Amino acid sequence: MKLSRLGEFGLIERIRRSAPTRRGVRVGIGDDAAWVSHGSGSSLITADLLIEGIHFDLNWTSLFALGHKSLAVNLSDIAAMGGTPAYAVLSLGIPRHFDSKQIDEFYRGFNALAKKSDVALIGGDTNMAKSLIISVCVIGHPPLRPVRRSGAKVGDDVYVTGTLGDSALGLKLVRQKPSRAKRISIAQLLARHHQPAPRLAAGALLARRHLATAMIDISDGLLQDLGHICKASNTGAAIWHEQLPLSRAYRKFAAKDGTVWALCGGEDYELLFCARRRARAQIEKLQALARVKFTRIGSCVPANQRITILDHGGNPLPLPIKGHDHFKK
Amino acid sequence: MKLSRLGEFGLIERIRRSAPTRRGVRVGIGDDAAWVSHGSGSSLITADLLIEGIHFDLNWTSLFALGHKSLAVNLSDIAAMGGTPAYAVLSLGIPRHFDSKQIDEFYRGFNALAKKSDVALIGGDTNMAKSLIISVCVIGHPPLRPVRRSGAKVGDDVYVTGTLGDSALGLKLVRQKPSRAKRISIAQLLARHHQPAPRLAAGALLARRHLATAMIDISDGLLQDLGHICKASNTGAAIWHEQLPLSRAYRKFAAKDGTVWALCGGEDYELLFCARRRARAQIEKLQALARVKFTRIGSCVPANQRITILDHGGNPLPLPIKGHDHFKK
Repeated sequence: MKLSRLGEFGLIERIRRSAPTRRGVRVGIGDDAAWVSHGSGSSLITADLLIEGIHFDLNWTSLFALGHKSLAVNLSDIAAMGGTPAYAVLSLGIPRHFDSKQIDEFYRGFNALAKKSDVALIGGDTNMAKSLIISVCVIGHPPLRPVRRSGAKVGDDVYVTGTLGDSALGLKLVRQKPSRAKRISIAQLLARHHQPAPRLAAGALLARRHLATAMIDISDGLLQDLGHICKASNTGAAIWHEQLPLSRAYRKFAAKDGTVWALCGGEDYELLFCARRRARAQIEKLQALARVKFTRIGSCVPANQRITILDHGGNPLPLPIKGHDHFKK
Repeated sequence: MKLSRLGEFGLIERIRRSAPTRRGVRVGIGDDAAWVSHGSGSSLITADLLIEGIHFDLNWTSLFALGHKSLAVNLSDIAAMGGTPAYAVLSLGIPRHFDSKQIDEFYRGFNALAKKSDVALIGGDTNMAKSLIISVCVIGHPPLRPVRRSGAKVGDDVYVTGTLGDSALGLKLVRQKPSRAKRISIAQLLARHHQPAPRLAAGALLARRHLATAMIDISDGLLQDLGHICKASNTGAAIWHEQLPLSRAYRKFAAKDGTVWALCGGEDYELLFCARRRARAQIEKLQALARVKFTRIGSCVPANQRITILDHGGNPLPLPIKGHDHFKK
């Protein structure tokens, strides 16, 4: 079967089914991070591969930002399990024409976020390559009970942190080669794309206080990642269109695109989580500690109702095409 | 500075110096694997990146063998610390023209070695790419005292497991497009290249019995990897040329190349270790349990004597050019 037909998630399911397992694996393939035992301790592990020409273009991003981002996307996965990152392994494929200054710039970005997040760089691999390849693996400490995608129940509220769609909208706008003046005003959107802020405090607080029943980070667009929670939890979800948290910059520049980038854009690296209705007051209070806004955008419904977007009258809106799949065209 | 001038090991040293660290890092950048704490437990972590056109050519290797090898090279690093592998994370960049059968073949090779070595595949990342990219991270359980590169003392014996040079010689011969008959007779050499056997039992036994004072896996050629031990341990080493363990196939096909592939070839994935002279009898006995031959090839000498290769009369032979550096030409 062609990969473009199987799709990314068909492929992952195929890999998962045949993957060897062993004692000590508490969460394997299919969540934001794996959870495994080491004697009496345990850890969370996640990995991401970023490839020049596929995930990034050096014409639109600095090497500093890329260093930051390649760690941030992994920290975001640890955050989505409610964990605390501790160690990072970084493997690079480096084009021959690079010089040591460029490499230094990349590491400055990576190390700056590592220091800020109390993460040690403990190893990796360096190789020649035709284009830049960045492979990062992060190991973190789990909370008592890591938050999985599968714990949501019908009636749970659905929340997101921060604002949605900025990253994808920013990327779209910069690709249109905007004027210098406009570039300055879309800088805020683009910063979300280039240097996403992993929601580590929010994830850890929600997990430690046992408030999140299910959690995922939004890397492939709200609808797609909500789909992963719904599938794993065997629920549907009804999302209030008017509740989608949009930044001022997004409202200013999205124009006729409306909420499509907020729903499907991808690379937000915000957390999407579910919680019991009775936890509303506690979650409301947690925002200050987590230093990020939580927005209640909907609720979990029976699985046969699938995912719907509702207008202010409660009527379903047409669903836009879902988020990113690496293999489907 | 150009990367080709800095070289792979100059780059690694540069990265190591600026790498952020934290509590819990027991061994960081600069050994075969890192060693870190997780609460009361600890683990070994290593990573390798294999890139099509740089590390392998799909004209000369099957996807099954490549799956095997991409795990094997990481297990070899865990073996070199004396550890036991437990978990693997596999990220792939997959060319669009691949179909699911090809991916399955790769995973069959990977999973076969994983099952044999009691390793669980717990996660990773799948992406599109222009050429095949394989990034593996392996997490293992450490022995009580992982064996580092830095513990050798002047007077220690130097040993290697198995035979040297088969992998590099096999690769050289197959590149010369040999006749069908010759291809069959060099199959044994090539198998060492395509499906190396990580010396897990040997590494774990040497560590558990506290016999190895320093250890490394030979991935970049005996001389280069011996250089890493000597540098970390602040010793030199004298190697007896006649003691180099060569396979029957190597002796048959190496011809005028002599021992150059055994000294500098790379990708042997044998263990190179040092041990006290008084441990000779114990090490001799351990071979049966480890199911691999140990050959004593020389001894550690003061650092100012550097590394020398001696003929049967004890006279130094000219040193061939060292092993592989990804960036130097």
